Amino acid sequence: MDLNLPSVNETYRINTQPLSVPQRLLLGPGPSNAHPRVLEALRTPLVGHLDSAFLGIMNEVQDLLRYVWQTSNLLTVPISGTGSAAMEATLANAIETGDKVVVGVNGYFGNRLVDMAGRYGADVVALRKPWGQVFGLEELEATLSKHRPAILALVHAETSTGACQPMEGVGTLCRKYDCLLLLDTVTSLGGVPLFLDEWGVDLAYSGTQKCLSCPPGLAPFTMNERAIEKLNRRSGKVPNWYLDMSLVASYWGSERTYHHTAPISMNYALREALRLVAEEGLEARWARHRKNAEKLWKGLANLGLSCHVDEAFRLTSLTTVRVPKNVDAKHISQRILREYNIEMPGGLGELAGKVWRVGLMGYNSRSENVQTLLNALKNVL
Amino acid sequence: MDLNLPSVNETYRINTQPLSVPQRLLLGPGPSNAHPRVLEALRTPLVGHLDSAFLGIMNEVQDLLRYVWQTSNLLTVPISGTGSAAMEATLANAIETGDKVVVGVNGYFGNRLVDMAGRYGADVVALRKPWGQVFGLEELEATLSKHRPAILALVHAETSTGACQPMEGVGTLCRKYDCLLLLDTVTSLGGVPLFLDEWGVDLAYSGTQKCLSCPPGLAPFTMNERAIEKLNRRSGKVPNWYLDMSLVASYWGSERTYHHTAPISMNYALREALRLVAEEGLEARWARHRKNAEKLWKGLANLGLSCHVDEAFRLTSLTTVRVPKNVDAKHISQRILREYNIEMPGGLGELAGKVWRVGLMGYNSRSENVQTLLNALKNVL
Repeated sequence: MDLNLPSVNETYRINTQPLSVPQRLLLGPGPSNAHPRVLEALRTPLVGHLDSAFLGIMNEVQDLLRYVWQTSNLLTVPISGTGSAAMEATLANAIETGDKVVVGVNGYFGNRLVDMAGRYGADVVALRKPWGQVFGLEELEATLSKHRPAILALVHAETSTGACQPMEGVGTLCRKYDCLLLLDTVTSLGGVPLFLDEWGVDLAYSGTQKCLSCPPGLAPFTMNERAIEKLNRRSGKVPNWYLDMSLVASYWGSERTYHHTAPISMNYALREALRLVAEEGLEARWARHRKNAEKLWKGLANLGLSCHVDEAFRLTSLTTVRVPKNVDAKHISQRILREYNIEMPGGLGELAGKVWRVGLMGYNSRSENVQTLLNALKNVL
Repeated sequence: MDLNLPSVNETYRINTQPLSVPQRLLLGPGPSNAHPRVLEALRTPLVGHLDSAFLGIMNEVQDLLRYVWQTSNLLTVPISGTGSAAMEATLANAIETGDKVVVGVNGYFGNRLVDMAGRYGADVVALRKPWGQVFGLEELEATLSKHRPAILALVHAETSTGACQPMEGVGTLCRKYDCLLLLDTVTSLGGVPLFLDEWGVDLAYSGTQKCLSCPPGLAPFTMNERAIEKLNRRSGKVPNWYLDMSLVASYWGSERTYHHTAPISMNYALREALRLVAEEGLEARWARHRKNAEKLWKGLANLGLSCHVDEAFRLTSLTTVRVPKNVDAKHISQRILREYNIEMPGGLGELAGKVWRVGLMGYNSRSENVQTLLNALKNVL
């Protein structure tokens, strides 16, 4: 050992206890509880990130993501970050400085898209609606016709409001006005009907910790040939190295060119989560989410509680429940957490204090969870 | 269920088997094998990312990172990505367009810093040396004096070459020439003596999958007050939302403002990995890495093999072994993997085909692993 070393400062050598966390039922906006099989997969010993065993896992993850998203896009991969990283990946790769980008803002994540797109030099037009509403084809067409953007960005499933944006016809509009269609599917992937190719979506992203019932830490990303063509036409490098899909594609593609070290354990977990979707089948999974959501909505009505979003546009994976007059939303959330170990937080932004957010996502979308929550709500209200 | 839904395409609903991977001894450049206690922590059920139980974990992770890095920097956090994301975070936050940045390039990761810095609009000066050598104070001072950069970026532990950059005096130079000192500590953190504050390092990053014996997926990051002052003086937003430390700091700081959803399970794992370092103590851990590296070097010499880096500047966590004449490096790596389940890949870039890279990192730095590898090498050579 080098004798010239300074002495070690022990200030931050803190005493800690073995990990112990409360057993929570996570019925909020995410993360949802991971499926037990997913947690088991997580602790599988590591292999190298260029090991042939891992390359096989990468291929399976890519195929299963294509199934869940209903896309045949070659470039369909999990980004090595959380949902926000994949959101940024869509924008970083698609935007060139000066591009006009229309963002539908009817909740928190629309605002985030506006912030991010601005950082990549986009000329951003925010099409705003009250939180909880969705956009109609007419107003979308009017905006595309007026602004002629390079990209239209919409949020399919707004985690902050519980609204589900109807997508039929939007892709056709985007082709008519020659713009790319970018879609946030964080709270819909694996829980809510989603047909990327059928809908003409060019770029999409998601997270693992919602309806896939996998821990947070990876973020599904996909782009089609139309989007790749725009990427290939760029005059300079993507101004973000980690999320540069021309590099990431070489790592996940047949070349396997080293880019970064993929999160091995999280890919084990995502593979298992996607296997569970494939075993159940998308139609059955979507139907299960609907059945349990309807049970929740009926139970809430019986308690005299109403939902914030019109039933026609309501997500089955996330319900925003209006806080009754004279009730302190935060106090109720705290009691539900403390007394029942159930997470059911309140709203954000425009909806702060006005709603609670109830997620029935993936593994958590079960009849007994609905009943447990309704009983708890009945007792504390 | 909506009757207007398209029918589901089953093409990518592939059949898969339960996860099964070979048991590898990962003695390459990383990932290294995760400690069994770390794998156990990984499968702990999730709590919410703003749950008070998780906030306590975040605080412990931050303190333990300060210990391992020997820094008292308030802004010391794991970035929710892999080491390359944290590398990019240091540059994205510190560089403003037009800033001059000097990068010491004596291996693969120096080149990566050059690429990334350019994407953030830096005027990059690459100070180049043959791979495996290190920079002396005189040449660093000559460069700082000539170019007067805003930032000097060096790689403490070059994973591609096995060289350890001496840091004594570099921080003083950087203060004399009024520039920030940015340091890559990916392959040194938790294995090789590292004194960030003592050395006057202003920004640093690392990975979890090397000497911390945690899976890849998080990336330690730290910046001190000097670096934060430069960040606060920026004229515009950081051109990277996910890695904008002014936002990330609010999430990890006392405000706990939502930014993104932290990878809960990976933070459980990192906490356990850091607890293991604190239990062992830094001095003992560094001494263990040295002892096992010296055993390896001696054993290699007995086999007639030589190391690429001068012993004075050789990393104890990663050794580059020269491939003897008339030996096919790749063929040997493949045999070692296939016949012994040991990962020991070859070099990159300038050193491709010329060296093997042997990592003895964290949990893997054990006498029996050295012996296992030496026996395997003896048999295949």
